[in-house]
Amino acid sequence: MAGPKYSATCSAPVNIAVIKYWGKRDTKLILPTNDSLSVTLDQDHLRSVTTASADESYGGKDRLWLNGVEEEIAEQGRLRTCIDEMRKMRSDKEAGDDKLPKLSSWPLHICSENNFPTAAGLASSASGFAALIYTLATLFGLLPAVDNSQLSRIARQGSGSACRSLFGGFVAWQGGEKADGSDSLAVQVASREHWPDLHALICVVSDAKKGTPSTAGMQRTVATSPLLQHRIKDVVPARMKSISDAIQRRDFDSFAAITMADSNNFHATCLDTTPPIFYMNDVSRAIVQLVEELNRASEEAGKGKVAAYTYDAGPNAVLYAPKENVQLVLQLVRHYFPNADFDDTFNLLGAGSGASHRGQQAAVPLPSGLPSTFNSSVIPVHEAGAVRRLIHTQVGDGPRKLNDAECLLKEDGEPLRLARAKRA
Amino acid sequence: MAGPKYSATCSAPVNIAVIKYWGKRDTKLILPTNDSLSVTLDQDHLRSVTTASADESYGGKDRLWLNGVEEEIAEQGRLRTCIDEMRKMRSDKEAGDDKLPKLSSWPLHICSENNFPTAAGLASSASGFAALIYTLATLFGLLPAVDNSQLSRIARQGSGSACRSLFGGFVAWQGGEKADGSDSLAVQVASREHWPDLHALICVVSDAKKGTPSTAGMQRTVATSPLLQHRIKDVVPARMKSISDAIQRRDFDSFAAITMADSNNFHATCLDTTPPIFYMNDVSRAIVQLVEELNRASEEAGKGKVAAYTYDAGPNAVLYAPKENVQLVLQLVRHYFPNADFDDTFNLLGAGSGASHRGQQAAVPLPSGLPSTFNSSVIPVHEAGAVRRLIHTQVGDGPRKLNDAECLLKEDGEPLRLARAKRA
Repeated sequence: MAGPKYSATCSAPVNIAVIKYWGKRDTKLILPTNDSLSVTLDQDHLRSVTTASADESYGGKDRLWLNGVEEEIAEQGRLRTCIDEMRKMRSDKEAGDDKLPKLSSWPLHICSENNFPTAAGLASSASGFAALIYTLATLFGLLPAVDNSQLSRIARQGSGSACRSLFGGFVAWQGGEKADGSDSLAVQVASREHWPDLHALICVVSDAKKGTPSTAGMQRTVATSPLLQHRIKDVVPARMKSISDAIQRRDFDSFAAITMADSNNFHATCLDTTPPIFYMNDVSRAIVQLVEELNRASEEAGKGKVAAYTYDAGPNAVLYAPKENVQLVLQLVRHYFPNADFDDTFNLLGAGSGASHRGQQAAVPLPSGLPSTFNSSVIPVHEAGAVRRLIHTQVGDGPRKLNDAECLLKEDGEPLRLARAKRA
Repeated sequence: MAGPKYSATCSAPVNIAVIKYWGKRDTKLILPTNDSLSVTLDQDHLRSVTTASADESYGGKDRLWLNGVEEEIAEQGRLRTCIDEMRKMRSDKEAGDDKLPKLSSWPLHICSENNFPTAAGLASSASGFAALIYTLATLFGLLPAVDNSQLSRIARQGSGSACRSLFGGFVAWQGGEKADGSDSLAVQVASREHWPDLHALICVVSDAKKGTPSTAGMQRTVATSPLLQHRIKDVVPARMKSISDAIQRRDFDSFAAITMADSNNFHATCLDTTPPIFYMNDVSRAIVQLVEELNRASEEAGKGKVAAYTYDAGPNAVLYAPKENVQLVLQLVRHYFPNADFDDTFNLLGAGSGASHRGQQAAVPLPSGLPSTFNSSVIPVHEAGAVRRLIHTQVGDGPRKLNDAECLLKEDGEPLRLARAKRA
């Protein structure tokens, strides 16, 4: 359907860091204490879609709907900052060309949806803010004069890791040194086409208690962890270089070793915080032990590493693996963690692409093709549902401009879909 | 009963470090990468008892019985090293006095028992080697000419932390710098009489899987953890000084803060190891969160910290607290972790000193006297037995010479008690 007259609809991807961002040197501008590097995941599977529209006729103020629920746009808030910055770029453009409609002076209606449920346990702020910034840049006709690195500088002020979702492939967030943050932005290290065979299996781990919010947690680490300073000064700079080189060489062994070491190093600084912050639970740790044993046995057999784990500020594991290894890893995880919901995007189980596996499932035997010295009792078979859901995806591209058919606003500027109940 | 003619029987205590030992700079001599500091626990509750006897009539070789099971004394082993070192001191003494019986040239029979079951999940190597060394020093008549610091240098070569069990109260293991280890020994920081009101509650946590043995684990950390180097160089030296000062001042708030921070710092370096080492499990972490919340609420009420947790290379928590706080802490732990076996050494539950609480127990209500802002839902009430056993003890004294009544060898030099089956 056709949306409002002046509108744009775009999507942006999720990214999962392999060199972790943890700690701000400036909490208002969101300037990190260290560089970070991430892999962008495929928008065909995980994405945020945003429609933005400007119109004189809209009521006096900007409005935002998130997954069908209207959200307040707080003054002094991060969302406000992002909208104002984009509007300023538009007004500068209008100042140079009278013929342009005065979009910068009109109210905005913004509607954003994620195609992955919150239940997936994936942070949506990165893809959400990236989609917002890219959509406004499109609506305001700023592209390509303003490039994605410039946009990343603004997305960063919405949510730090959002700056990395403005590129596909392998993306570095250069922390920068300037106090105004002008040099704190994202750059692409390599495109998805450079290493298209890198896949990801997300293991959504059930967790009773809510963990420490990352925004509060990371500043507590900055304030109290003696080890964090060492991570910032010595550990991360060396790893940024070595993992970038590994990506250039498509060297999965090195990529995996650095990715796992940095995930553990990050969670070590969380544990070194006062009071300590715990994100990984016993199930997270069991997945670590499973992957470590699989890699050990594979290397003993003269082959390389099979997969790499990484954990953000929660118990979920993201497993990176070369395409040809995913089937083995998937069946191994399904053996030890029965009954995880799984949509078989790549038809690994042979029931058809996207075939949905839900509810009671038959026990999955140990896969054939395991390295001969693999110790199958490294962890016990867990109770059904310990891993709630599995999501198989791959390295993906950057933000996309979508056509009117995907517009989330009706011609009158009202949201196409509204959620029944307001979220708690 | 009277033992063999030439015999001595002594006991030595368990010690629990508050500044942790993790990593060796010399694995043969057992020289640590950093200083450590521990609290000696009361031998009335936890101890190793050893009887050593020398006699011409014994068969050609030294023999050892551990908890009623004969153990091989391996050549080149740590036990061999300790026995040889002690024997050398005796022969030097004999060389200076012909009238002395030539004990140094006769075979030894050594019998050692712990009064705490392995099930308690407490390392017995520290108290065991300390008891062995102190008993041989007594048998060989080396005391007091040879002091306990000199003996600690030998005990250290049996098991690093054993050197700290040669003193009561608060004990520092000075790592030293010399290659020959001559300056790597234990010294007393303060006696038990200096701060007799410091109590300990040991929470024995059930754990399915066996953790990484500490001897192997610590060297893996030395080899692979970038954070350990920072701990060794900067973190520990400052904490050794500040916790020693806190002990001198009997300042529990500072003692507790440093103790908890160092436990977390140590486990952080384990997590930073490749592959990572996990000792704490979800139950261990729940106890951390419980103690942190109790302390937070108490400090918000203008009072100090109530207790401090520390974890060695396993899931068990040791909680240190001033005597007057133990009842509150005990009932809090029994509320959230039902059905732990508990011998009430200090009669906190009013059923008599040493009253045994075993098996099915009635639900324990939240204790009265909790700080008003304590959040009782900080952790859930766990399934019965998540904490298997509770042991209440206090700061204790150093090795003791025991009388013949406690001799573990019969007159003929054979063990008084033999275990039925050999341990697995």
